[in-house]
Amino acid sequence: MADTELAAMRHAARLARVVLGRTSPNPPVAAVILDPAGHIVGEGATRPPGEEHAEVLALRAAGDRAGGGTAVVTLEPCNHTGRTGPCTEALIAAGVARVVYAVDDPNPVAAGGAQRLRNAGLQVVAGVLRDEVADGALRAWLHGVAQARPLVTWKFASTLDGRTAAADGSSRWVTNQVSRADVHALRDTVDAVLVGSGTVLADDPQLTVRQVGGVADGELAARQPLRVVLDRRGRVPRTARVFDGAAETLVLDTAVPRFALKALFDRGVRHVLLEGGATLAGAFLEARLIDDVVGYVAPKLLGDGTGVLRDAGITTMAEAVFLSVVDVARLGDDVKITGRPVWADSGNVRRED
Amino acid sequence: MADTELAAMRHAARLARVVLGRTSPNPPVAAVILDPAGHIVGEGATRPPGEEHAEVLALRAAGDRAGGGTAVVTLEPCNHTGRTGPCTEALIAAGVARVVYAVDDPNPVAAGGAQRLRNAGLQVVAGVLRDEVADGALRAWLHGVAQARPLVTWKFASTLDGRTAAADGSSRWVTNQVSRADVHALRDTVDAVLVGSGTVLADDPQLTVRQVGGVADGELAARQPLRVVLDRRGRVPRTARVFDGAAETLVLDTAVPRFALKALFDRGVRHVLLEGGATLAGAFLEARLIDDVVGYVAPKLLGDGTGVLRDAGITTMAEAVFLSVVDVARLGDDVKITGRPVWADSGNVRRED
Ligand SMILES: NC(=O)c1ccc[n+]([C@@H]2O[C@H](COP(=O)([O-])OP(=O)(O)OC[C@H]3O[C@@H](n4cnc5c(N)ncnc54)[C@H](OP(=O)(O)O)[C@@H]3O)[C@@H](O)[C@H]2O)c1
Ligand SMILES: NC(=O)c1ccc[n+]([C@@H]2O[C@H](COP(=O)([O-])OP(=O)(O)OC[C@H]3O[C@@H](n4cnc5c(N)ncnc54)[C@H](OP(=O)(O)O)[C@@H]3O)[C@@H](O)[C@H]2O)c1
Repeated sequence: MADTELAAMRHAARLARVVLGRTSPNPPVAAVILDPAGHIVGEGATRPPGEEHAEVLALRAAGDRAGGGTAVVTLEPCNHTGRTGPCTEALIAAGVARVVYAVDDPNPVAAGGAQRLRNAGLQVVAGVLRDEVADGALRAWLHGVAQARPLVTWKFASTLDGRTAAADGSSRWVTNQVSRADVHALRDTVDAVLVGSGTVLADDPQLTVRQVGGVADGELAARQPLRVVLDRRGRVPRTARVFDGAAETLVLDTAVPRFALKALFDRGVRHVLLEGGATLAGAFLEARLIDDVVGYVAPKLLGDGTGVLRDAGITTMAEAVFLSVVDVARLGDDVKITGRPVWADSGNVRRED
Repeated sequence: MADTELAAMRHAARLARVVLGRTSPNPPVAAVILDPAGHIVGEGATRPPGEEHAEVLALRAAGDRAGGGTAVVTLEPCNHTGRTGPCTEALIAAGVARVVYAVDDPNPVAAGGAQRLRNAGLQVVAGVLRDEVADGALRAWLHGVAQARPLVTWKFASTLDGRTAAADGSSRWVTNQVSRADVHALRDTVDAVLVGSGTVLADDPQLTVRQVGGVADGELAARQPLRVVLDRRGRVPRTARVFDGAAETLVLDTAVPRFALKALFDRGVRHVLLEGGATLAGAFLEARLIDDVVGYVAPKLLGDGTGVLRDAGITTMAEAVFLSVVDVARLGDDVKITGRPVWADSGNVRRED
């Protein structure tokens, strides 16, 4: 494997992240075309559903220069005709000599791409940066294929003593501006944001993406995730800001986390950001439907107020849900802690402490 | 200022930390003697009260080689005869040519050392690594001189959702072994550890130093901090483990944090580790008698249980006590957050977020 191919895969992995939240239910994939000398002559990333796949865009940009060259793709090129034609045929037609990809396509309908390419006489190398890509841009999509439900990231913002609001209910702001901008960047990568009726009634949040990529403070980003409110009793008034038309909003009248996720999956949602509050987060945790936890902890003390999490059905320390820590970062004076629940009897090994 | 002197001061700053918790009410000071060629020929750190000061020990180790050399000391050499003779006279008698120190002695009784040395014809350089030393080994002692009360470090251990115990009261263990060893290392540096009666009744803790410097797990360290229990109603039974004789224990029958600290200061305590529980921590925070906060946050979720802090008199978000963050460290999967409260109207500028 040439260094240029590895570098091209790293580049593709980055490109794929840029389209997160914009491709579901299709996977966010990126492709880079190298000419025979190893120079990048085309690149592309999956367009919204019904539009071009990454390989087709990259080949179009490369034109004739793809002939005899190498395609570097984050996912095994698809072999089926959906709303667009199979990517394998496009690669063959362009005269590409070699295809390097990261992750095998686990989707039985689209799989077989590598075999088709080999049969057509192309060299195929699989598994380059596989873990990085599978745990990166493709994570939510792969999770969806395996579990038939969206990946759930639970985000919370709290004081160092675990409060999200003070005794009088005030909650603006718990965390600093850097953390709040980071939440907007996180929203920008998901398909949907989810809250309970309690949060809408208490805070009347907008739940839009407003502070990313040069968009002025307060200004709406061009792409917005679906806003979802769980409100089985219809308590949320039509005057709530989530109905301001700034983004699509879905009200679900179920209180069962699994049903809510099923409904979202069927609408094409592959990654949900669970934004609160404590009650809904507790219900999702108890149902083991939280895959990632992102906690923004502000260095503040309140001593009273609302907790981060409520009623998760845990009564004793030995049953605490342990998180394997993925990252700890300082955002100004705030600390962002990212982890993944390790379910006691899931077969995952909980680290001994 | 020669590089060798700066290096010697760094070395002295480290030596001084080693005697933390062993010198109060005297300051933890270290001295290094350099011969005229700049080689270290003697070093020493303050012994327990009534025994030698750092300079005297270092000079003794250096012997004749101190003649014409330089003494590097973390605190201005004392000029008064207490239980030991003045260090200034010892330096002059040893024929030292030059004295370099970090922090001026703020104690009016002992001050004037630099002047005395200059009058005797020695070169004196003040302020080398001043801030580092003043904020390091000498911090608690300097705080005591200025405030006439011990420095208070509040330590807590909690889950990511701010719980110190589960709903059924179980609290062993919140944090991992690395964090627990770190608490023992912290105890090893203070003069006293302080808890409320509630903690003794709930957990029956030993509050001793057991896992430091090669001491086997469970084995007692040679030096132990004073154990202090606030128990105004005499609820703690004599059978509690804090009365096991493994270290000295003091029961105070006051519930007023300031009175408790005054009593400890008068006994020579300069640094107190407040170890809980939530009620006592709340009372100290409300009285603004917490100087440092050390939080050990375990990546676990409980959703219910005891909070870290209770009844600190704060009712709204704008009144939250903001901490200026000194350090964020990962201890295995746990996160240790160290900060210092910035009191809203103390003149300290609270960082804008
Ligand atoms: N700092 C943060 O990160 C953050 C984020 C969000 C919210 N908050 C704070 O959280 C507070 C609101 O908390 P909350 O707990 O009341 O809000 P919530 O969790 O958003 O909403 C709770 C409500 O959701 C409905 N619900 C739907 N499915 C449910 C289920 N499976 N289990 C339980 N309830 C379900 C219930 O109402 P129905 O019975 O009517 O269906 C329930 O009362 C606000 O003060 C807000 O400021 C903080
Ligand atoms: N994870 C940790 O870091 C940690 C550390 C310590 C404790 N804990 C947990 O904390 C729990 C105990 O909490 P707690 O809040 O009951 O214990 P606490 O704060 O240690 O003790 C509270 C008691 O202290 C007495 N007290 C003395 N001065 C006081 C004052 N100024 N204000 C209020 N009370 C004063 C009161 O008893 P009287 O009225 O009888 O004087 C009060 O009931 C246990 O479950 C323990 O496991 C956790």
